[in-house]
Amino acid sequence: MRQEYIPVILFCPGCSSVGGGAFTELGPFYPRGDGRGLRLNKKSWNKVSNLLFVESPAGVGWSYSNTSSDYKTGDTRTADDMYRFLLGWYKKFPEYRSRSLFLSGESYAGHYIPQLADVLLTHNEKSKGFKFNIQGVAIGNPLLKLDRDVPATFEYFWSHGMISDEIFLAINKGCDFEDYTFTNPHNESKSCNDAIAEANGIVGNYVNNYDVILDVCYPSIVMQELRLRKYVTKISVGVDVCMTYERFFYFNLPEVQHALHANRTHLPYGWSMCSDVLDYSGKDGNINILPLLQRIVEQKIPVWVFSGDQDSVVPLLGSRTLVRELAHTMGFHVTVPYSTWFHKGQVGGWVTEYGNMLTFATVRGASHMVPFAQPDRSLGLFRSFVLGQRLPNTTHPPID
Amino acid sequence: MRQEYIPVILFCPGCSSVGGGAFTELGPFYPRGDGRGLRLNKKSWNKVSNLLFVESPAGVGWSYSNTSSDYKTGDTRTADDMYRFLLGWYKKFPEYRSRSLFLSGESYAGHYIPQLADVLLTHNEKSKGFKFNIQGVAIGNPLLKLDRDVPATFEYFWSHGMISDEIFLAINKGCDFEDYTFTNPHNESKSCNDAIAEANGIVGNYVNNYDVILDVCYPSIVMQELRLRKYVTKISVGVDVCMTYERFFYFNLPEVQHALHANRTHLPYGWSMCSDVLDYSGKDGNINILPLLQRIVEQKIPVWVFSGDQDSVVPLLGSRTLVRELAHTMGFHVTVPYSTWFHKGQVGGWVTEYGNMLTFATVRGASHMVPFAQPDRSLGLFRSFVLGQRLPNTTHPPID
Repeated sequence: MRQEYIPVILFCPGCSSVGGGAFTELGPFYPRGDGRGLRLNKKSWNKVSNLLFVESPAGVGWSYSNTSSDYKTGDTRTADDMYRFLLGWYKKFPEYRSRSLFLSGESYAGHYIPQLADVLLTHNEKSKGFKFNIQGVAIGNPLLKLDRDVPATFEYFWSHGMISDEIFLAINKGCDFEDYTFTNPHNESKSCNDAIAEANGIVGNYVNNYDVILDVCYPSIVMQELRLRKYVTKISVGVDVCMTYERFFYFNLPEVQHALHANRTHLPYGWSMCSDVLDYSGKDGNINILPLLQRIVEQKIPVWVFSGDQDSVVPLLGSRTLVRELAHTMGFHVTVPYSTWFHKGQVGGWVTEYGNMLTFATVRGASHMVPFAQPDRSLGLFRSFVLGQRLPNTTHPPID
Repeated sequence: MRQEYIPVILFCPGCSSVGGGAFTELGPFYPRGDGRGLRLNKKSWNKVSNLLFVESPAGVGWSYSNTSSDYKTGDTRTADDMYRFLLGWYKKFPEYRSRSLFLSGESYAGHYIPQLADVLLTHNEKSKGFKFNIQGVAIGNPLLKLDRDVPATFEYFWSHGMISDEIFLAINKGCDFEDYTFTNPHNESKSCNDAIAEANGIVGNYVNNYDVILDVCYPSIVMQELRLRKYVTKISVGVDVCMTYERFFYFNLPEVQHALHANRTHLPYGWSMCSDVLDYSGKDGNINILPLLQRIVEQKIPVWVFSGDQDSVVPLLGSRTLVRELAHTMGFHVTVPYSTWFHKGQVGGWVTEYGNMLTFATVRGASHMVPFAQPDRSLGLFRSFVLGQRLPNTTHPPID
């Protein structure tokens, strides 16, 4: 690809984009095992795009506001702030204005990204001048609609052996997810809330709900080891399960903050992945995102929903059904029947497409943070996405 | 443990016990990556027991009969042959007569092992002299009862993203698993058989149904490499996915057969894991094994059903329900509520126990052949089993 055609991709995880997206998922560097430096991520998405990471909403990671009321925020404000940021960014870097723009994210970015796309499309409709050149939207394990995403977690627990038949039956009997709300007590009956609490108790504290097959990192041991200048890398299923602690340690080093021009205002708290200062609207979690996805697709912008299949937090079971229901609403036919897709001769996951516009794909062996657990397959998926191609349906080219 | 107290365990997988159980699962040696030698399995179950592997039914692996009618066989004959073998073996090795005997197996050994236990218990009832000192029965991913085990496969496919909502709905609508039979056409309607065929087509040929997260080995490439004296070890999720081919190559070496005193009669076929000469009764697959498990438990012999949670062939979903139903039939109460069990500070899986006698446990990250994919966790589980202890419910002792 000629340099000037390389697209721009904006990526947000639910919290800090720099800490999450950039430094433990799809960026060119990961924290080193001693928490005091970086190592190269050979599967960075920057192989096929320019990557743009923005700390959003303001208040996550090292981002801040000097107006404390800014921390009382929600989905609308988040989208609007990002829109204004992008206008400013394109002004400063006009050479990127005409390039393809892809919007991507995961988890709660199932809210951020479609709402941002909606704001940018509204701008495009009204603007006589500059228009955002949006060419695609891809969201991974995204929170889309509670009435399906929430029961999916318990279906996932049950089908993966993490809760018993009995407690699953109790949840199905006691809970009406139609009116489930994002914040506690979720507008549910006592019997429902009790059953859910019991289910979470059975899953326990020693399972990573974002990747149920992974071993867990013992933070107290690892933080001690990092202070003692040890290498703490602990590999489970090919993943360094302590990477988030290495990251935490790294971002809290004064010299790192200095180099990143971060925390110049000497905030009274350390770096964390999310934010303790934000007072984020819990009501916004109830928003049904499907109409926004519909609007995006109606503008002929392809939407991909992908799903790491080891995640119980926003599991494939919900996302898959929601995409199918959206396709039904839009009158779309199946254009790629549900089938395996391939990466380097192995099954990368399963994929289906509707109306040549709307794609649902699983990533086999991937977590909630898809590029974290499966960097290679995730780069394969992303490459097809930005090239506007379907995922490969044959084993060719074969394995390495 | 003093030498004379170390128990004896008989282990059968569905096919060759030497090829399967001994040389790729729980025995002290695995085939080497070049298919021309062995390497040590540090997690062999012989750390806590004597292991007995018998090629059963006759005709699997290198075992044979010189009476071809012996190959027309079934469950009853298999159990009876093994009973007679054991009587002969105890005669030859009387020092093992008084030791605890544990019966274990996996897959179709869900039929073999309970039926063998039944024959041995009948012997014990009648015998005035020698009695088999059976102290426990443990079966992994066992075929127990078709009306639950078969739909469990499709529930597993669906919940793991391997088939679509639509095809799962079609199976649920079209199939009545109450009367499902082991052999084709399974006594099902055309719509059911069509939906099942479609489901299997969607899962495809490049997924290991026995461990759905694993990459697959490309046999043609690997057999070529083995002939060229290469090391072919291909690791996926910590497992050498080509081990079964290394085994195949190894057992077909003339010097290996010579050393094992195998194939002295120059059989007109090569070694294989199962058997092409057997004409095994398909009807026997329909037998409901639960009443046999009940009889074993009624004799105060603990029964453990364990389940590698990555297996779609006989998935945990069926085994778990069947154990619960058996406990209900027997009027057992829950003596260990469904909860995580631990091995080296990590979740080994989930476990529940009924009436202090009947245990169901999953092994996290394990395949249909539990010790193959998770040797360490599997040894931990087996150690508790032979010691008559419950699986550890705390993280102590902590991780290495």
